[in-house]
Amino acid sequence: MTRIDTKRRGQIQQAPENFLTQDAIADLNKNGMDDTRRGFMRNGFMAALGGAVGLGASMNALASSEGDPAILEKQVWQTTLGKNVATMPYGTPSIYEANLIRRESPGLTRVSAASVAFTPLQGLFGIITPNGLHFERQHQGWYNIDPEMHRLMVNGLVKHNRVFTMNDLMRLPSVSRIHFIECGANTGLEWGNVAVPTVQYTHGMLSCCEFTGVPLSVLLDECGADLKKGKYLLAEGGDGSGMTRTVNLDDVLNDAIVAWGMNGEMLRPENGFPLRLVVPGVQGVSWVKWLRRLEVGDMPYATKDEAVHYNDLMPDGLARQYTSIQECKSVITTPSGGQQLLDKGFYNVSGLAWSGRGKVKRVDVSFDGGNNWKTARLETPVLTKALTRFNIDWVWDGSPAILQSRAIDETGYVQPPIKLLRDARGTRSIYHNNAIQSWKVDSNGEVSNVQVG
Amino acid sequence: MTRIDTKRRGQIQQAPENFLTQDAIADLNKNGMDDTRRGFMRNGFMAALGGAVGLGASMNALASSEGDPAILEKQVWQTTLGKNVATMPYGTPSIYEANLIRRESPGLTRVSAASVAFTPLQGLFGIITPNGLHFERQHQGWYNIDPEMHRLMVNGLVKHNRVFTMNDLMRLPSVSRIHFIECGANTGLEWGNVAVPTVQYTHGMLSCCEFTGVPLSVLLDECGADLKKGKYLLAEGGDGSGMTRTVNLDDVLNDAIVAWGMNGEMLRPENGFPLRLVVPGVQGVSWVKWLRRLEVGDMPYATKDEAVHYNDLMPDGLARQYTSIQECKSVITTPSGGQQLLDKGFYNVSGLAWSGRGKVKRVDVSFDGGNNWKTARLETPVLTKALTRFNIDWVWDGSPAILQSRAIDETGYVQPPIKLLRDARGTRSIYHNNAIQSWKVDSNGEVSNVQVG
Repeated sequence: MTRIDTKRRGQIQQAPENFLTQDAIADLNKNGMDDTRRGFMRNGFMAALGGAVGLGASMNALASSEGDPAILEKQVWQTTLGKNVATMPYGTPSIYEANLIRRESPGLTRVSAASVAFTPLQGLFGIITPNGLHFERQHQGWYNIDPEMHRLMVNGLVKHNRVFTMNDLMRLPSVSRIHFIECGANTGLEWGNVAVPTVQYTHGMLSCCEFTGVPLSVLLDECGADLKKGKYLLAEGGDGSGMTRTVNLDDVLNDAIVAWGMNGEMLRPENGFPLRLVVPGVQGVSWVKWLRRLEVGDMPYATKDEAVHYNDLMPDGLARQYTSIQECKSVITTPSGGQQLLDKGFYNVSGLAWSGRGKVKRVDVSFDGGNNWKTARLETPVLTKALTRFNIDWVWDGSPAILQSRAIDETGYVQPPIKLLRDARGTRSIYHNNAIQSWKVDSNGEVSNVQVG
Repeated sequence: MTRIDTKRRGQIQQAPENFLTQDAIADLNKNGMDDTRRGFMRNGFMAALGGAVGLGASMNALASSEGDPAILEKQVWQTTLGKNVATMPYGTPSIYEANLIRRESPGLTRVSAASVAFTPLQGLFGIITPNGLHFERQHQGWYNIDPEMHRLMVNGLVKHNRVFTMNDLMRLPSVSRIHFIECGANTGLEWGNVAVPTVQYTHGMLSCCEFTGVPLSVLLDECGADLKKGKYLLAEGGDGSGMTRTVNLDDVLNDAIVAWGMNGEMLRPENGFPLRLVVPGVQGVSWVKWLRRLEVGDMPYATKDEAVHYNDLMPDGLARQYTSIQECKSVITTPSGGQQLLDKGFYNVSGLAWSGRGKVKRVDVSFDGGNNWKTARLETPVLTKALTRFNIDWVWDGSPAILQSRAIDETGYVQPPIKLLRDARGTRSIYHNNAIQSWKVDSNGEVSNVQVG
């Protein structure tokens, strides 16, 4: 019978120290250790079948399961008394899921307090990112701020400068909405010729949660903000880096939230507890964590993190600045780089699509490197500026294949191939790479990252 | 300045051993210890104001925050290096949230392996229940089942009896959908005259998650189920209790899921890892955990847990059986029993509504025990058979008040007052109490559970 490789699931794999050197990439491609779905891919139930088969035929292979002791015999969990309720007053995942964790890329930065921990997209389902796996990008480490001591100041072009406690804020009218957050540097290494081996590292600075808080518009209104003159907002964080960003109010006034809730509970410390600015559609760096100040102004502030960082270096050496909206994008998460298919036959191919400009309208999937496209099923609800899960049937015939997904949003924008993006914006940028991702399936079933078209 | 009572937040409070005796209830009402929002309610920012005020006026009270050292002076987290990324490869809540946990009610059962741990609704936001706080109801304890050894058998009125591994199942076409799950016994003690003190214990056998798995209809189709004769499904669990339930296929065939995913990751062990039956709209006991067998049949099975338990004892001594759909219901979660308001002025009143028959159409809120009703705002998305979050503004004038919410679903069904339910179904049942919940606010601001109308 077929098996989930539970030993592999349970194994904690450290990211290699020399990650993102070419040797390390070759090694990761070979071993694909951080893929919890790998066992699932490797041991399909169609090993006995030859040629291309559909779902119906594949089921017949299950005749081999007759006589399986795992179903015929009583298992220990059917004959013993289990654990008590509230053994974990705050629960944790199964021990068999210990491999599905956030991972750092030691090759990317020298100091872990100014680094990234990526979300393991290859092992996730649906659109909600569990809080324990939400990606982190820290500029000077994270801190467990005492909410009793936290304050939010609102100043600038307002009638009343005000200072709010958490207590003050949480009595105000609140809203709850599901939105994605993506770091502007997500997929950044793919601008060059670095084919990062797994989707955790290519696209894992991406999460989607239900956020709760007071609408920014309500807060500004109550402070008497002058929104005729005041077109910009300065958002300042309370950590050591004092992360400070200009937000264009035209982009966010309709849906920005000064948020304390994330997926039903308070924000996690590494994601800004107790207060974070939620600016749907805008790159993650502007979702300022440990939010301590909002200033309304009439021009952009040109802070360090928008003058020196987070701008797009163009081929002519100049840089695009204030390019904060995350354009329409998608990626296949299963199967993806580092995973392996050993059997021909039926697969559910699954992925994520999103747009900083609204709803995803359609996702097409190609199995032949972009020559032919089929429209995928979108899971509901399809929400504005939120992840959308897509699924599509695929029968693998054992030949080499190149899998791609291409998202189209409600504005009509079509996710571009990497070649088009490079033609326009060169190869030296880090930010805002929303190119079509290609995963190559070799005839031996190995899946790897390739840069096509 | 006003404060969140962080010491109270951080304090872990054990449920009293004698919970649900009258003394214990009186004591809990008095102390309200398990309310993490209590500090927030107690210390409003309008202490200095007299009379009824709206949001705008209340803001002016913040002038007192001028000169606050918490905003004027640099805090330690602004001047030190924080913690590294991936300090927690799987994250956990802030230490300041340690009070927001699942709680057992020792008074309810003698054996913790056959008991309940309730979700702390009074401290949650939005509609998604974080997996760490999903309620648990165990019949013989929970077990961390090795997914490699788990099997699902499909038999009965099918052309092909089949046994699936997890590996087999996870290759099939999958869907992801957000649904609530509520135990049929939720709010069960309120049938009598027991006014359970907090919303965690009155309504906390309620959660809402995004579930991922193969549609039941796909699985049955592939096994060649005879759905003309086969109108019932027997679902059998793999734990020691062998929980076995009849499911009416007419109720669930459109949207039931054989699920492995919950909020993006694998199910938690206490919620059925690696496989659970998701039957939207149906009471929680039928969402069989550690699902090991599905049998298609042409009549109900009258298992122990539907003959002896989980039926509705009526005033005439007979019992309603197979009443599995959870009717339309709602509850105000903030403010709720055990919380306390010390200040007059503006409050965001927030709660949850749901229906096992479809979408919530409207929620009305009364502040005077049902004499007058106002329509609340519903947060989006409003999804079928999912929790819906509602919010409504309230200015408390300091007089005693009785807060109620009343939900109406898309079928036109209106959530009934407790008196109507008792007139029809008596006071000796445990199950399917969907009555309007009343919270009394005393003139001293104490909030308690009262049974009105």
